[in-house]
Amino acid sequence: MVSGRLIVFEGGEASGKSTQASQLAQHVGATLTREPGGTSLGAQLRAVLLDRASYALDPRTEALLMAADRAQHVTEVVRPALAAGQNVVCDRFVGSSLAYQGYGRELDVDEVRSLSAFATGGLEPDLVILLDVAPAVASARIDGALDRIEMATPGFHRRVRAGYLTLAEADPERWVVIDGSKPTDEVTRAVAVVVDQRLGRLKP
Amino acid sequence: MVSGRLIVFEGGEASGKSTQASQLAQHVGATLTREPGGTSLGAQLRAVLLDRASYALDPRTEALLMAADRAQHVTEVVRPALAAGQNVVCDRFVGSSLAYQGYGRELDVDEVRSLSAFATGGLEPDLVILLDVAPAVASARIDGALDRIEMATPGFHRRVRAGYLTLAEADPERWVVIDGSKPTDEVTRAVAVVVDQRLGRLKP
Repeated sequence: MVSGRLIVFEGGEASGKSTQASQLAQHVGATLTREPGGTSLGAQLRAVLLDRASYALDPRTEALLMAADRAQHVTEVVRPALAAGQNVVCDRFVGSSLAYQGYGRELDVDEVRSLSAFATGGLEPDLVILLDVAPAVASARIDGALDRIEMATPGFHRRVRAGYLTLAEADPERWVVIDGSKPTDEVTRAVAVVVDQRLGRLKP
Repeated sequence: MVSGRLIVFEGGEASGKSTQASQLAQHVGATLTREPGGTSLGAQLRAVLLDRASYALDPRTEALLMAADRAQHVTEVVRPALAAGQNVVCDRFVGSSLAYQGYGRELDVDEVRSLSAFATGGLEPDLVILLDVAPAVASARIDGALDRIEMATPGFHRRVRAGYLTLAEADPERWVVIDGSKPTDEVTRAVAVVVDQRLGRLKP
């Protein structure tokens, strides 16, 4: 049995990741999942992580909780699906920890990478699609109450974006950057083209 | 301002740690705290970790949640108390992760040690008191419903005990083993003697 492919969407707040992940999963018939929150444990952790009442969460605590969510998610959801030959589309993965807790919270990026490697047992995505959107464009898209991470300083969001671009540049075999400020349909078409080019036509 | 001392109690289930930690903290006027669960985040994590409904928790997830609890606890409770010159008595610390998730769950002990080092930022206890009790004696002491960790297999609890004894043997400057199967008062006196010998008379 051939293993499925793991396709990850990464990007800042309001970059359109969730919409595009859902579109692609439907288009290629893949399992759609997300981090944090892809398991019942993860749903509990996601609530803690995004709750504004957790404002005093230490950056190391945040990094370890994200890694805990990932360990459970990989074991319970991602590996079984891939092993069954299903393709998996995941909204955020290791790149988010490197960009947010590493570059954003200014923890040591290699230490954060080690936590993720412990959590995933070394599982790597086949393709990472970074939807890049300037923070000013993203802010204009967000309405309603901000969660704990959305409400971080503009400097934090600038570091996250620059961190993502650094990660993409360092690993061009795996990462592709798509302009997420374009209209949704245009981004969806660009994503489909990239997936075909990089992974071949994926069977549902 | 002189930093306070950090004294940790370690041991298996029903080894008398919590009773002895409380007695010692009262005796020397130290701040009493515990892991997991020494912060409001920790209380939420402790509930997840000990809940029998979390039976499918992956060992790596468990190790990462314990480390997350520790990171928050060290930042929010332990370091501020020590910096204010207070002595701190902690019911479980890094040794528990090494014994339970390393030896007990059979994760790589050095990997678990790295997670803890990330969590503590390198903070080490001044004294670790291991209350050693044979698993059969401990089982006889536990009554009522078992939590998720207490209900693990006898083999798990034997590995935890052997792991603790290995840790104590490897670091005799920091660790002391006390027979926890003796009557409570006798253990309390033995603890007081060890603390005086190792750290001198602690002022409240």
